Amino acid sequence: MTDVKAFLAEKASKTENALTEHFARWKDAPERLREAMEYSLFAGGKRLRPGLVLGAAEITGGNDERALPAACAVEMIHTYSLMHDDLPAMDDDDLRRGRPTSHKVYGEAMAILAGDALLTMAFEVASQSGDARVVAELAGAAGAEGMVGGQVIDLMSENEQLTVDELQRLHACKTGALIRASVRAGVLLGGGSEEALTRLTQYGEHIGLAFQIADDILNVTGTEAAMGKPVGSDEAHHKSTYPALLGLEKAKELADACVAQAIQTLEDFGDEAAHFRALAQYIVERDS
Amino acid sequence: MTDVKAFLAEKASKTENALTEHFARWKDAPERLREAMEYSLFAGGKRLRPGLVLGAAEITGGNDERALPAACAVEMIHTYSLMHDDLPAMDDDDLRRGRPTSHKVYGEAMAILAGDALLTMAFEVASQSGDARVVAELAGAAGAEGMVGGQVIDLMSENEQLTVDELQRLHACKTGALIRASVRAGVLLGGGSEEALTRLTQYGEHIGLAFQIADDILNVTGTEAAMGKPVGSDEAHHKSTYPALLGLEKAKELADACVAQAIQTLEDFGDEAAHFRALAQYIVERDS
Repeated sequence: MTDVKAFLAEKASKTENALTEHFARWKDAPERLREAMEYSLFAGGKRLRPGLVLGAAEITGGNDERALPAACAVEMIHTYSLMHDDLPAMDDDDLRRGRPTSHKVYGEAMAILAGDALLTMAFEVASQSGDARVVAELAGAAGAEGMVGGQVIDLMSENEQLTVDELQRLHACKTGALIRASVRAGVLLGGGSEEALTRLTQYGEHIGLAFQIADDILNVTGTEAAMGKPVGSDEAHHKSTYPALLGLEKAKELADACVAQAIQTLEDFGDEAAHFRALAQYIVERDS
Repeated sequence: MTDVKAFLAEKASKTENALTEHFARWKDAPERLREAMEYSLFAGGKRLRPGLVLGAAEITGGNDERALPAACAVEMIHTYSLMHDDLPAMDDDDLRRGRPTSHKVYGEAMAILAGDALLTMAFEVASQSGDARVVAELAGAAGAEGMVGGQVIDLMSENEQLTVDELQRLHACKTGALIRASVRAGVLLGGGSEEALTRLTQYGEHIGLAFQIADDILNVTGTEAAMGKPVGSDEAHHKSTYPALLGLEKAKELADACVAQAIQTLEDFGDEAAHFRALAQYIVERDS
């Protein structure tokens, strides 16, 4: 097994350097706005999605330089979505990654606007890849049929018992779509074949589901110290989760099955996909 | 003088048809979300910005078909910005275009999310032009150095007396940037020369300023029936405006001077720019 943490750390560091350079370009933005954007963006996330973009580009023969704009863009989109999800009108969360949420520090208006700005600038950055397909891919995943749609379903189904199928649809939109799009953007920028795009899209779908089930499990079994936010919040919000629907053991089995399927889709690849095999495993074994 | 209202109406109708087709594609979006997006998008705006995109493309030798994705995108971005500006945490407005604002009808969470979705889908639509420069142009205008930045300055300067220069910077970001970008996107998609891009960019800047001054004037002299929202709201919000800073007469003179400068920048163009000359005039003569 490759050292997946070292792989992620290297890609995270490259992405963070590139993000810092983008912010240095945006001199005309109001200082307070930039501060709010940076507060949430540089809060020490795992940078899983940039790792998927850069990893998928590498597997398909591309390089970091060409794929970095998309890697930055997916992390900006991910961060904006957390900021808006945390708002008082949504989940009303006070803590994220061990720190007060954006609206607690900067106020509600600025948290909305800094999120809007991150989402918008994500597409400015993505466009630097010079590939309009990448913009379409990320916007499709983030929009009404993807993340925003998932958040709407999530809000509308609070206090409702969802079936496993409904829960799967919710998460395919809310978290799965951007994970899938991260992989696909990497393949597009790596110059992968149609076959590689199909395979790696499936990989992205399987790990996306595994990721969400693992997240639900961590929300029950994790520690606040490792998670940087209160555990048990899903239950407090009366949210449907995999452990609640299936029980903890069955949920773990389902997550493991997703990982196995993800690794299975990589069988036609050689050593170049070693990191992605390890990453699939890591997704269900992480403690935060 | 050409019939500028007929010109705008024709471009508005084409844009609305194209927008309707895009919505028909988004079958997987939650019904309530689509409804909220459509409620604000199809509320009978003037469609000035799509008119600028399509007009600029026409002037520089392009056609509607190629420029329509960008025309749809700017209107979606414009609409999202109105929705978020109206939120309780921002301007807390109840009425827009003669109807209750989005958060009054759909609630705050949905108004935020429908705005997010319109902004996101704008880039999906813009990417269909196949030109990453257009995405960069629109995102740059909408983002931290453009519209969002302008809204931040606006919120931070409530109850403060701005100088004319500060007011100009605020509006150059908040409304000017997207008007300018609409023209530029049209030129890029029309295949205009560098010279045409420079000239028409200046045109966009002049009419953007004229538009805002006229807006401020209408907020004082307009009627609620024509405007579809309460007049005098700027004063109620203690916002700095051109009439407040310069007096009504001087503000009108400044708007007229901007129009004259806008028309001046078109001197190297022939009949193909007739609509744009009339449009500059219309911007300060409209009653809503």
